[in-house]
Amino acid sequence: MYRTHTCGELRISDVDKKVTLAGWVQRTRKMGGMTFVDLRDRYGISQLVFNEEDNVALCEQANKLGREFVIQVKGVVKERFNKNENLSTGDIEIIVSELTVLSVSATPPFTIEDNTDGGDDIRMKYRYLDLRRSCVRANLELRHRMVVEVRNYLDKQGFMEIETPILIGSTPEGARDFVVPSRMNPGTFYALPQSPQTLKQLLMVAGVDRYFQIAKCFRDEDLRADRQPEFTQIDCEMSFVDQDDIIETFEGMAKHLFKVIRNVDFEKPFIRMPWIEAMKRFGSDKPDMRFEMEFVELMDVMKGYGFGVFDEANYIGGICAEGAATYTRKQLDALTDFVKRPQIGAKGMVYARVQEDGSVKSSVDKFYSQEVLLSMKDKFGAKPGDLILILSGSDAMKTRKQLCELRLKVADELGLRDKNKFSLLWVIDFPLFEWSEEEQRLMATHHPFTAPNPEDIPMLDEHPEKVRALAYDMVCNGIEVGGGSVRIHDSKLQDKMFDVLGFTEERAQAQFGFLMNAFKYGAPPHAGLAYGLDRWVSIMAGLDSIRDCIAFPKNNSGRDVMLDAPAPLEQCQLDELNLLLKKEE
Amino acid sequence: MYRTHTCGELRISDVDKKVTLAGWVQRTRKMGGMTFVDLRDRYGISQLVFNEEDNVALCEQANKLGREFVIQVKGVVKERFNKNENLSTGDIEIIVSELTVLSVSATPPFTIEDNTDGGDDIRMKYRYLDLRRSCVRANLELRHRMVVEVRNYLDKQGFMEIETPILIGSTPEGARDFVVPSRMNPGTFYALPQSPQTLKQLLMVAGVDRYFQIAKCFRDEDLRADRQPEFTQIDCEMSFVDQDDIIETFEGMAKHLFKVIRNVDFEKPFIRMPWIEAMKRFGSDKPDMRFEMEFVELMDVMKGYGFGVFDEANYIGGICAEGAATYTRKQLDALTDFVKRPQIGAKGMVYARVQEDGSVKSSVDKFYSQEVLLSMKDKFGAKPGDLILILSGSDAMKTRKQLCELRLKVADELGLRDKNKFSLLWVIDFPLFEWSEEEQRLMATHHPFTAPNPEDIPMLDEHPEKVRALAYDMVCNGIEVGGGSVRIHDSKLQDKMFDVLGFTEERAQAQFGFLMNAFKYGAPPHAGLAYGLDRWVSIMAGLDSIRDCIAFPKNNSGRDVMLDAPAPLEQCQLDELNLLLKKEE
Repeated sequence: MYRTHTCGELRISDVDKKVTLAGWVQRTRKMGGMTFVDLRDRYGISQLVFNEEDNVALCEQANKLGREFVIQVKGVVKERFNKNENLSTGDIEIIVSELTVLSVSATPPFTIEDNTDGGDDIRMKYRYLDLRRSCVRANLELRHRMVVEVRNYLDKQGFMEIETPILIGSTPEGARDFVVPSRMNPGTFYALPQSPQTLKQLLMVAGVDRYFQIAKCFRDEDLRADRQPEFTQIDCEMSFVDQDDIIETFEGMAKHLFKVIRNVDFEKPFIRMPWIEAMKRFGSDKPDMRFEMEFVELMDVMKGYGFGVFDEANYIGGICAEGAATYTRKQLDALTDFVKRPQIGAKGMVYARVQEDGSVKSSVDKFYSQEVLLSMKDKFGAKPGDLILILSGSDAMKTRKQLCELRLKVADELGLRDKNKFSLLWVIDFPLFEWSEEEQRLMATHHPFTAPNPEDIPMLDEHPEKVRALAYDMVCNGIEVGGGSVRIHDSKLQDKMFDVLGFTEERAQAQFGFLMNAFKYGAPPHAGLAYGLDRWVSIMAGLDSIRDCIAFPKNNSGRDVMLDAPAPLEQCQLDELNLLLKKEE
Repeated sequence: MYRTHTCGELRISDVDKKVTLAGWVQRTRKMGGMTFVDLRDRYGISQLVFNEEDNVALCEQANKLGREFVIQVKGVVKERFNKNENLSTGDIEIIVSELTVLSVSATPPFTIEDNTDGGDDIRMKYRYLDLRRSCVRANLELRHRMVVEVRNYLDKQGFMEIETPILIGSTPEGARDFVVPSRMNPGTFYALPQSPQTLKQLLMVAGVDRYFQIAKCFRDEDLRADRQPEFTQIDCEMSFVDQDDIIETFEGMAKHLFKVIRNVDFEKPFIRMPWIEAMKRFGSDKPDMRFEMEFVELMDVMKGYGFGVFDEANYIGGICAEGAATYTRKQLDALTDFVKRPQIGAKGMVYARVQEDGSVKSSVDKFYSQEVLLSMKDKFGAKPGDLILILSGSDAMKTRKQLCELRLKVADELGLRDKNKFSLLWVIDFPLFEWSEEEQRLMATHHPFTAPNPEDIPMLDEHPEKVRALAYDMVCNGIEVGGGSVRIHDSKLQDKMFDVLGFTEERAQAQFGFLMNAFKYGAPPHAGLAYGLDRWVSIMAGLDSIRDCIAFPKNNSGRDVMLDAPAPLEQCQLDELNLLLKKEE
């Protein structure tokens, strides 16, 4: 051992002990004949003191230390004259009698401080230096702690962690697979799993009963901001359970995690909100319920008064922003611009302020009498000083989604999205299918193994779009942290699903044959759920990006700029794999 | 929930309870008017009873149940008349009043019994059925338990588990990489990690201090028996430590695991045996020390008596098999054939029996006087009834390895390799370099970041082959379960290593530039170790093959026969990746 104690360990009770410390030089200060060095390691910072009067040569040596040098010192612990309350070791300092430089350091390209001067790109290139910053390391520590808690919680509940393979077969449904050429079997490829979905279902067929895995997943998708080509799931599956069992089990786990990680207690059961209700009240299948501002539908109040936009609309709805009547014209114009951006796509926005005297002043006063506006106000339960914002459109669902964006934007501006407040709920009763504009066909909302709600099975043929799934998402602060479903365990029902999804028997067999075959040998009823670990850690840590809780993340082009990967192969590697690169055209 | 209890849960204290069970039909027996069904789940087997007198229809339904049907039953717990001591639930049975078939099953292709009639290939194809066998499931349970214990042990020691990426860069040194074409960056490839070696060293530079990860690793090697293209390591690294610290930490973990998993206590510290001693005493860098049969060198005793084979040899050595003088001529011939197989390559074997009267009868009596043979016997400390087996050769190390094979073979035959006995040791002081016949150059025995023993650094230029590494392996029962080294943290020493290994500066920079750059910014002294998890679980479980403790293993051609992977891609997938397959020539 190069040390007797870490840099975060010594206290006033250690005074007069002889100690050896090792770590990085955070900074040095020369004050008169004294040199002070802040020595840093993972556990904290300790102050070292070199005194010219005691040892000139040693003090000179200390004066030559640069930032981020790795050193080892021996010395005696003394009480500090000027105590530092911000440091756990702030009551003491070490009077150094021996100094060894273990490694020198070039000047780092940015400062190793919480408030660094380094931009994103340079910090990613030198991620090993970025990780020295305590604010970044804290995220990894929180991630570690969460993962320990998850594992022990599930272990106590009888779940077995089972590693499923990373080199599997390609199933070109859903997102794009990353593939791996096989040298031993020329012309063939493995694929990396998008999730262990089918493998965990096989484990249920195998009688594992309760499975989990903290599993690496891979999707070769065009990267959007804050999406990683490889990410981590807490992947779970249970046999002989129904939807309520899953919800109770994983609600218990969520409450446990919030308690141990953030000391937050949830006393009540989480709300279970049907998907259609979530859409109607919040325009989202992952409503942020840290604040209210629920949608109010206004078709019966606002339609038919000669305002063409509303008169032609199939949906009119709004939100009431409490106390926001002070919004200036400029702020309101900015909101209008926001909803009119192509990503959102609204045609415009109507607003109305509730005045001090209770009357309503709106942007459409010339179409509506005060009487109509007052009855609108009453529908919101709005008070003087409130601001009402209204959108309309021909497609109710699309307009609701636009209104959702507006709601979140306004909530951001009003400071209602507090990172230290947590609001969780379950969204249930998702539609089993959704229409894909791109593919011009029905697609499984989750995946083709999701069980329909038994009540709705009779509608599978005539009105598949109306069939509800036994699927559920756990939502935290407007973010889906996890989701899953009851699975189909009946081969005949599974065949029916493939049929509705337009799979030929051959294609179903080619892609999912191994699973369908397995189901012929006694599949138990089963259901499961997967959490996005990166996302969940980032919520717990109060981070904006999942990148900040990943040790070595990739950038938005899928590159690891530190490792400089991906990169061209050597020709001999391509030859061995029997591959040619297509010439660029 | 489909059940109130599992099939392994009910006891005599539950008599008269109304219960609901669910599981698989293990077997049905009709005896007179009664039908008995063994219902199985992960937790055990419970006996169900259907009585014709009580309910004819229900009993008929039960008689139609096939093996592996999934059923749910309601009934009342009763004390059994004929108790079954082999079952934890053997005191009770359930008198069934309600039966629901949840899934039917086709006849499984092999019996779901510990003693199955299924061969290896069919069990791998239907692995989900193979896993239903309790002997196979027990391996996965043991693996889960070991991993839980490892994680909690390391967590308590302050280690942080950090996920390192799976999509990294290719470093064509060591084994072959599996690669992943990048669609977003055409013409470039990611590689899958052979181990997180360089990434964990970066984490030490990052100040993580104590890291571990249960990490998937990938090697595209020609598969030998019992080698998997993907395997799992318990990967660990510590900063500010030396070799003794690592050995103490991980010896503690090994002892803890053996205690909790197998209830084995190791009272003494593990032996730390220098590599050269292990080679001389056992002909192996992973000696099996469950039994003795140490090598005895005989050059001074046997050379120079006119027996050409020995007279020309540079090494003569043997082992003494206690009580094996009863070996017949046929058995001895078989041993001779064994050592002469090309994989071993000995030219022949000399044997000598110690007779009841203490005299020696050998296969080379015509060259040696009884006096010489007796002094040979004394060197072994052999007793009447013992069998001495001797090999010789021109290359001492090669001959020792042959003698090692013979020692293990004889020990197998004598039943000395007891799977329930565990003998652990550390092999230390490995040579830093080894000569590669294939590449005709010095290669790093472990990897190029291994630190030389400081005492031997002066020999790096003139006698690199004599330089010992600060490297160590943990060996259990003749198998390397883990190994590691102190790493070089000094850039200059690292440059020297690359120089000795024949790397040009450019090549070193191209392959390990990111690590060498990182080391410029203050690398702490660090050291680490990695365990092969699959191997270690298989030892703990008393298995012959690592395959048996992997949920979905690949076969010896690297194929997953259940998933039928790897497989050809669809043309559009190849196009998107900008790849062409080379036509077969």
